[in-house]
Amino acid sequence: MTTALPSAPTRTLADPDTPFAVVDVHKARRNIERLAQRADKLGVTLRPHVKTAKSLDVAALMHDGTSCPITVSTLAEAEAFAGGGYTDITYAVGIDPHKLPRVIALLRRGVALRVLLDSAEQATFVADAARAAGIAVPAQIEIDCDGHRGGIHPDAPGLVGIGRILHEAGCLDGVLTHAGESYFAHSAEEQRLATKNERDGAVAAADRLRAADLPVNVVSVGSTPTAHAAEDLTGVTELRAGNYVFFDLVMAGLGVCAIEDLALSVVVTVIGHRPEYGWIITDGGWMAMSRDRGTSAQPQDQGYGLVTDLAGRPIPGLVMTAASQEHGTLTARGGALLPDLPVGTRLRILPNHACATAAQHHGYHVIDGTRPQDPAPVIEAVWKRVSGW
Amino acid sequence: MTTALPSAPTRTLADPDTPFAVVDVHKARRNIERLAQRADKLGVTLRPHVKTAKSLDVAALMHDGTSCPITVSTLAEAEAFAGGGYTDITYAVGIDPHKLPRVIALLRRGVALRVLLDSAEQATFVADAARAAGIAVPAQIEIDCDGHRGGIHPDAPGLVGIGRILHEAGCLDGVLTHAGESYFAHSAEEQRLATKNERDGAVAAADRLRAADLPVNVVSVGSTPTAHAAEDLTGVTELRAGNYVFFDLVMAGLGVCAIEDLALSVVVTVIGHRPEYGWIITDGGWMAMSRDRGTSAQPQDQGYGLVTDLAGRPIPGLVMTAASQEHGTLTARGGALLPDLPVGTRLRILPNHACATAAQHHGYHVIDGTRPQDPAPVIEAVWKRVSGW
Repeated sequence: MTTALPSAPTRTLADPDTPFAVVDVHKARRNIERLAQRADKLGVTLRPHVKTAKSLDVAALMHDGTSCPITVSTLAEAEAFAGGGYTDITYAVGIDPHKLPRVIALLRRGVALRVLLDSAEQATFVADAARAAGIAVPAQIEIDCDGHRGGIHPDAPGLVGIGRILHEAGCLDGVLTHAGESYFAHSAEEQRLATKNERDGAVAAADRLRAADLPVNVVSVGSTPTAHAAEDLTGVTELRAGNYVFFDLVMAGLGVCAIEDLALSVVVTVIGHRPEYGWIITDGGWMAMSRDRGTSAQPQDQGYGLVTDLAGRPIPGLVMTAASQEHGTLTARGGALLPDLPVGTRLRILPNHACATAAQHHGYHVIDGTRPQDPAPVIEAVWKRVSGW
Repeated sequence: MTTALPSAPTRTLADPDTPFAVVDVHKARRNIERLAQRADKLGVTLRPHVKTAKSLDVAALMHDGTSCPITVSTLAEAEAFAGGGYTDITYAVGIDPHKLPRVIALLRRGVALRVLLDSAEQATFVADAARAAGIAVPAQIEIDCDGHRGGIHPDAPGLVGIGRILHEAGCLDGVLTHAGESYFAHSAEEQRLATKNERDGAVAAADRLRAADLPVNVVSVGSTPTAHAAEDLTGVTELRAGNYVFFDLVMAGLGVCAIEDLALSVVVTVIGHRPEYGWIITDGGWMAMSRDRGTSAQPQDQGYGLVTDLAGRPIPGLVMTAASQEHGTLTARGGALLPDLPVGTRLRILPNHACATAAQHHGYHVIDGTRPQDPAPVIEAVWKRVSGW
């Protein structure tokens, strides 16, 4: 006869001290599947940007646990994902020459780490470093399709010269663009236009380089809004997007997803009431949510976030309208009544910007999400995030 | 004859990969000394709020390395500082009853951990937990002096009842208020008024409790602006402030400090140029600076921060005006010329809000700060931060 060992007690969202971040893995999988199907249909490789979740566990959902091409925003991410078996990584921030030794160290480990640049100055740094190290440093030229931040215009005189510097050192890998302005494209028509501009800019730049006898392997485009609006990606080889795994209120405001698709939230606790002001005070401030107020630029400002109960069901009209470091203020809008939520009540806040809110936490408490009526969902796992640079 | 061992190479701000946070310890010491002298003169105990720096090393500067009364914003801070020898800690966020077991565990370790509350509901939780544990849980009643967030009005009918619930369980420790609205007091007169309100509110509440035969040991006030404006704190026993150790552009905009007093900055690297837009692009985005734009509510909006060279000398007119996750955009304002800063140039950004910017980093690279002409200051130490909850 064997005596059963006591099993570890089941923990639910009612258990850890608040605030903490939650990932609904059912919603995340659904979001992942949706974009994977689009990429298949469009005939392009999907190269997820892991900068939103910064989690090997979340990335594993994206390709059933197998290594896949990914995009990163820091070398810390590149190193962590290389450690996790990823061997095809695009570092999609213009290269700082001081960081090239870490890039070369990854290349020597067999990781195809692709760097980004938009000037002859940077191309020369990369070419010189590649020659000195005796290793090709695959480099992509950043193309500016919408005046968002970095990049060179596809018709700029300097483009071919950059390509030549890279090619002569065996480093020219392709072109990359990001329609960052699509985050402000508030109609389907504007989003289609942003998507067309993004494709057209990347393909035009690739064509100019090829016309100058320079090889272009990769033509990379993407942002979460344009990835979901794209209808024709002829000439493009790969699609990047990151936010889509969690989505957020900014994406919902753009119509890219529905509120029910938001896979990331933060659990907070009611710690006070100020009925004279119409406020409920929680222990989730900007340290838990970030200071990101992306929806303030949208037709419907969602404050610091919309409020749901612990099960994830929205509480109509309840919005987080103010934040101190460790205090959140909830108010009712549109004539909604302030609900009766005693001290100790746990709620979840849906964030403006998943990338920024996730970055305030060390990791995620993971729930299954397939039992939406469960008042306190069971915590299936705790997943860690990569942080720092 | 002995052979000298090669010493570790000296590292300067030119060495670590960017972005990273820097603390100028000379400025921090000067800021600390200034408020310590004020508190002495006002005849009150200074109880620094460690939520800004969240660093045992920074806290050690405050009292020459000896343990002192401190304020914390999370139990993670309380636990870390208790581990560092601090035994008198006020946890200045309204207590969530779910967190009382961690409070009691600290009390049992001999740490005088004072909790905060503003309702009979919370007082009952605290009293019940204290009785169940057989230990007094020192509790302060949060007083609302300016309608900023939590607290009970000093003349509210419920105040004495809360005091009584606590006193009957041996838990009544005092009253605490925070003039959060002083962050929006843009004239010396408004700041004096905020300071008077803060003192008057706390003292009035203490007087009401004492008139009902309830003991009030602690009468605690403070915020960085009011701590620097206070002229008469009769009836107050202690002063709290946190931001003052680093200061930031919001505090400079309020006139509480000068730009030269800012002890925290972030080192970034130029990674590109967009002369057609008047932009310099850096590798320091909102992940390095936070999304905090506190100065946007001030007469002089400082964008995401003001720019200095690596030595810390301001570059006139250069402002960080936009941020993506890992990109910053610098522009010249007021007719200033965009300086010629090649790719690879390192700069420092002075933040809007030190608490928020510091929270984006694992720790601080510490410079001496007494050689302001040094083009690349030597890194004297790397100090860690506490994070999480």
